[in-house]
Amino acid sequence: MIEEGSVGIVETQYFTFAEPPNEMELECGRKLGPITLAYETYGELNEACDNTILVVHALSGDAHAAGYSSADEEKPSGWWDIMIGPGKGIDTNKYFVVCANIIGGCKGSTGPSSINPQTERPYGLAFPVVTIQDMVNTQKALLDHLGIDKLLCVIGGSMGGMQVLQWVCSYPEMVRLAIPIATTARLSAQAIAFDEVGRQAIMSDPDWMGGDYYGKTIPHRGLSIARMIGHITYLSDKSMHQKFARRLQDKIEYGYDFVTDFQVESYLRYKGDSFVKRFDANSYLYISKAMDYFDLGQQFGSLKQAFAETIAKFLVISFSSDWLFPSQQSKEIISALRYNNLDAIYTEIKTDYGHDAFLLEAGQITRLIGNFLEHGHRKA
Amino acid sequence: MIEEGSVGIVETQYFTFAEPPNEMELECGRKLGPITLAYETYGELNEACDNTILVVHALSGDAHAAGYSSADEEKPSGWWDIMIGPGKGIDTNKYFVVCANIIGGCKGSTGPSSINPQTERPYGLAFPVVTIQDMVNTQKALLDHLGIDKLLCVIGGSMGGMQVLQWVCSYPEMVRLAIPIATTARLSAQAIAFDEVGRQAIMSDPDWMGGDYYGKTIPHRGLSIARMIGHITYLSDKSMHQKFARRLQDKIEYGYDFVTDFQVESYLRYKGDSFVKRFDANSYLYISKAMDYFDLGQQFGSLKQAFAETIAKFLVISFSSDWLFPSQQSKEIISALRYNNLDAIYTEIKTDYGHDAFLLEAGQITRLIGNFLEHGHRKA
Repeated sequence: MIEEGSVGIVETQYFTFAEPPNEMELECGRKLGPITLAYETYGELNEACDNTILVVHALSGDAHAAGYSSADEEKPSGWWDIMIGPGKGIDTNKYFVVCANIIGGCKGSTGPSSINPQTERPYGLAFPVVTIQDMVNTQKALLDHLGIDKLLCVIGGSMGGMQVLQWVCSYPEMVRLAIPIATTARLSAQAIAFDEVGRQAIMSDPDWMGGDYYGKTIPHRGLSIARMIGHITYLSDKSMHQKFARRLQDKIEYGYDFVTDFQVESYLRYKGDSFVKRFDANSYLYISKAMDYFDLGQQFGSLKQAFAETIAKFLVISFSSDWLFPSQQSKEIISALRYNNLDAIYTEIKTDYGHDAFLLEAGQITRLIGNFLEHGHRKA
Repeated sequence: MIEEGSVGIVETQYFTFAEPPNEMELECGRKLGPITLAYETYGELNEACDNTILVVHALSGDAHAAGYSSADEEKPSGWWDIMIGPGKGIDTNKYFVVCANIIGGCKGSTGPSSINPQTERPYGLAFPVVTIQDMVNTQKALLDHLGIDKLLCVIGGSMGGMQVLQWVCSYPEMVRLAIPIATTARLSAQAIAFDEVGRQAIMSDPDWMGGDYYGKTIPHRGLSIARMIGHITYLSDKSMHQKFARRLQDKIEYGYDFVTDFQVESYLRYKGDSFVKRFDANSYLYISKAMDYFDLGQQFGSLKQAFAETIAKFLVISFSSDWLFPSQQSKEIISALRYNNLDAIYTEIKTDYGHDAFLLEAGQITRLIGNFLEHGHRKA
């Protein structure tokens, strides 16, 4: 039973390019090919070819942003189904939506778990370190393949927001509207530190075996720890308090042992375990590193210079309780945009959901995004 | 060469009690004995026996709070030497200072790495889960042994502050002055979550072996991860930024690999590695659990009721940038104290050092503590 407001059942598609000897040169200087991107599209490209919205995903996302991936699913499984569909914030009756799994990922796009054609075994750590710029360059190749040379909008949250920012700096003439959400032009030392502990947890798991664990035991303990750390940083202290406070799990008194006592512990263990089933540990290393490396100011000399060629209009959204990518970092982006005389709206959403609010706060941001797309669409 | 203002070379002493069949009953209901506490004293007990200050330590502390432990040391090795000594905030010319390693610890007091007399092997997880109340009860036994029935002051930061609060609730008639620093009457769900991830990191290390690793390989990877997580929470985002920003470690460009890139990564790895050399992984489990369990309001019906019998004067100190034990939690303590008509001074110190400020901000709190001790000393 397909829900109303859903894009329905969607088949993931694949585009392969950079076939040897025409490998793509990455930011690190190494060449990679062939490269496959898994992607999905929703809605129809109009005749003027000017209604495309590129949706870019965060660390654990994938190409499946909306709808169902099979008829067996009881609910839409797309990670941003609350935002994308007929009549929704990103209205598929009006817009042609493209979402691709990032390079370095593990959901159909080429990454460390893909087969290295030179060895006919998974790359593992032989996979080159990719950057946000590399993600954007591969998305550009996909759009070329689809015959799209203008983007009505690029939109994404967290690491998706980094890709939005990279898009308007790397391909400024292509983007008319940009919506970076809960993001930053560079991670803080604290955020890098959390990423590093997650990586250390993975790499110190004996099952990781230098990244060469495919077909063997996966480093589930390390990846689970990394996810638990990440998950704490995605929630606010207040939302954790509202959700769990100090309530006990299935007991009325302390257990005086090291089995789960508190609901928040049980919740974290569940989050860690379920993530391991759907995500590749090496991809976690590569993607978190790409986020750590991202630094637009360093790339272009300064953040102000980064936007020198940009023409897009911006809607920058941050969340009041996001302590991983705090509002101050969005304000720094806004300052640099306004320095360049760019049309930029900034909205801080009051919410207790923390960093993950962009996946949860549909009510508040749906209208904001819908109006901005419509407004930009009409005027441009 | 002994520094001026130091208490000099101090020998750790040991007190053993609760010898079978007179074991001590713990809060969990289990009995434990014999129990040894490692402790140190500085200064002299006066004739009136009314100048004793009990210093209680945080997670990674020990009995060695001030001075040198041997003549070989170049600098004083006591963990709070900046605060304790002749002419310092806790002036050993005036006061008799006692500091004991907590039960459950690994620095001379009975804990999971101690020999279980029933098996003649280390307890490991057979050690009972101890609580803040148990820590305080064993300190009480030590003071009885030393012939001290009144405390001029109990002072400590972080988990030390929890012991201060427990002291004035459990033995209200014994304490004249109380200085809980950077602490809380109960951990938040977020703080429990960080503790739990640390424990998971230890317990998922294959070398942990259900806690039975003594004499074998220690679970250094898990303990190191736990310490790294903890360390991030002890610092503020701002102090990390000031200390590291995004500076690279021994390189001028990104390495595009998973070796250390940023200084903050290198610093964390160092902190994790050095902690493993001096701390027992099981003690980490027990002590973090004791902190999670601490909940004065739950223990006494409400936080207001907890202080119903308390007579001590309070100096409550919090740090503006402490996000692990935020100032709001100190304000809740102050409210409950004032509800009980207790004399309570509250000071929030403006600092970027975060939770660890009590070990670092000697300048600001030395005078505050010195004056409070002197004032209470004279008036009482």
